[in-house]
Amino acid sequence: MAKVIFGVDLGGTTVKLGLFDMGGNALDKWEIPTRKEENGRQILPDIAQSVKEKVSEKGYAGSDVAGIGIGVPGPVDSAGTIYKAANLGWGVMNINDELGALTGLTVKAGNDANVAALGEMWKGGGQGYSNMVAVTLGTGVGGGIIVDGQLLAGATGAGGEIGHIHVNDEEEDACGCGNHGCLEQYASATGVVRLAKKALAGSDKDSVLRSGEISAKSVFDAVKAGDALAMEVAEKFGEYLGKGLASVACVVNPEIFVIGGGVSKAGPVLLDYIKKYYKPYVFHGSRDAEFALATLGNDAGIYGAARLVLS
Amino acid sequence: MAKVIFGVDLGGTTVKLGLFDMGGNALDKWEIPTRKEENGRQILPDIAQSVKEKVSEKGYAGSDVAGIGIGVPGPVDSAGTIYKAANLGWGVMNINDELGALTGLTVKAGNDANVAALGEMWKGGGQGYSNMVAVTLGTGVGGGIIVDGQLLAGATGAGGEIGHIHVNDEEEDACGCGNHGCLEQYASATGVVRLAKKALAGSDKDSVLRSGEISAKSVFDAVKAGDALAMEVAEKFGEYLGKGLASVACVVNPEIFVIGGGVSKAGPVLLDYIKKYYKPYVFHGSRDAEFALATLGNDAGIYGAARLVLS
Repeated sequence: MAKVIFGVDLGGTTVKLGLFDMGGNALDKWEIPTRKEENGRQILPDIAQSVKEKVSEKGYAGSDVAGIGIGVPGPVDSAGTIYKAANLGWGVMNINDELGALTGLTVKAGNDANVAALGEMWKGGGQGYSNMVAVTLGTGVGGGIIVDGQLLAGATGAGGEIGHIHVNDEEEDACGCGNHGCLEQYASATGVVRLAKKALAGSDKDSVLRSGEISAKSVFDAVKAGDALAMEVAEKFGEYLGKGLASVACVVNPEIFVIGGGVSKAGPVLLDYIKKYYKPYVFHGSRDAEFALATLGNDAGIYGAARLVLS
Repeated sequence: MAKVIFGVDLGGTTVKLGLFDMGGNALDKWEIPTRKEENGRQILPDIAQSVKEKVSEKGYAGSDVAGIGIGVPGPVDSAGTIYKAANLGWGVMNINDELGALTGLTVKAGNDANVAALGEMWKGGGQGYSNMVAVTLGTGVGGGIIVDGQLLAGATGAGGEIGHIHVNDEEEDACGCGNHGCLEQYASATGVVRLAKKALAGSDKDSVLRSGEISAKSVFDAVKAGDALAMEVAEKFGEYLGKGLASVACVVNPEIFVIGGGVSKAGPVLLDYIKKYYKPYVFHGSRDAEFALATLGNDAGIYGAARLVLS
């Protein structure tokens, strides 16, 4: 019977790897560089090599290893086919097959944001739940939808792309995706900065944000210090995000939203602003959904990747 | 090995029943009244009785019957627990267990709108697809989400309640759910009439809609006849529905939307108005989703209920 699982989080700069027991306890964690040259053709062989070395170092037999889970930065369908990973130079390929052939192990691949969601469900802020929406407020806004304990990948791996829900008809600036008024334009780290700059430009109000560099962190620090203008920004942030998550809830009716990513470091105050606007917009059947902060930080990816092998 | 499946569609006035072979071919269809007196306590025994009579009439052994699927008008979780069925007078109960005990057969229950979606996937407009969103434009707007061939019930059976996605910040009238600006207020049969009445009141334009009773049918008949004001109404309808379905696609990334319900009788012109507004609002990963009309009409429920037994 298998004793261990490998969890791999493939990023644009480094590959994070973790070795877990079947209960999800981390036995070892390490990193290797992501070699993107030659359209990323070395990436999977490097990962295979690193896994094989660890198996040998620990003295495991092949049957001791349940498999390798891997989160990758691009849309992946439920069969492990990645459609595009611009960051890595990859074209369409089936990662389960490719990495499986290189290692002789069972491989399960998923989109990195989705896989991180699975990690938060297994060992993080969503522990004990099986219907969950993970929301990552980073450079962009990512999402991971878990239904009855399984990741929702979507037909072309674009499930959980909640950062591109349309929440503002009046927006004149384009989102990175080309559309106008996407949730990501207000609720990401850059979105919060954008809202703050607009608020500063549109008001004469005194604010600590008028000095120093503006970041999502400085905005929410100012909110905690009672800065009136920063609090207006947080209201806008909460309105767009709460409204967007209410739409998500009408579709998948989760038990819990787990909020992670850089912006979530602001802490519980963030959840208050989101819930204030979620409740009035959501269908009553989803009004009691809970909100929690993510707890695994950058390790969510390796935990979730390992969990993928068990699902 | 089982040879047949019963599919039951429990409505507020009648119970539709169907007998299907394992391939989904209808062998028999009939109806019994829904007896709502005494808080609906006779409903499940009546269904059990009707199924038993059919089994006896056809001379089936118990092992010939794969089970009974049933769609009910209320939120049902994936274990068959119904939380509320105001129409029937029912409180919380587990239908799988109750009807199972009455018949000695395996029972699988689901929400009626979700179950109808499964029917359309199996034998209707979504045949051949396994990631589908069914949209029912009737008195209200209902939805059914199918992911990898499985119904998405949601944590409390409120998955697919897409009629209550918020699509209009300016709305002053309340939706039946109590919120303001729900998709249902514009895309249901009553929503289309409401849009038409507003358009007539706000304009001096001549229109065939100014004489006779206004219905979703009369509006789309006028659209087909080239009535300018009716076409404005259809644009509004398409904008709200296209925008709402774009949000749904950002969450679940379906292969296809299947549009049913009374309003869908308008035919292909409806899909043109929806797609016109879906494309500019949706995330590019879901831009190629297809749109089709439902084909099973009122039989979608019994087909889907039978299919539920196989999932």
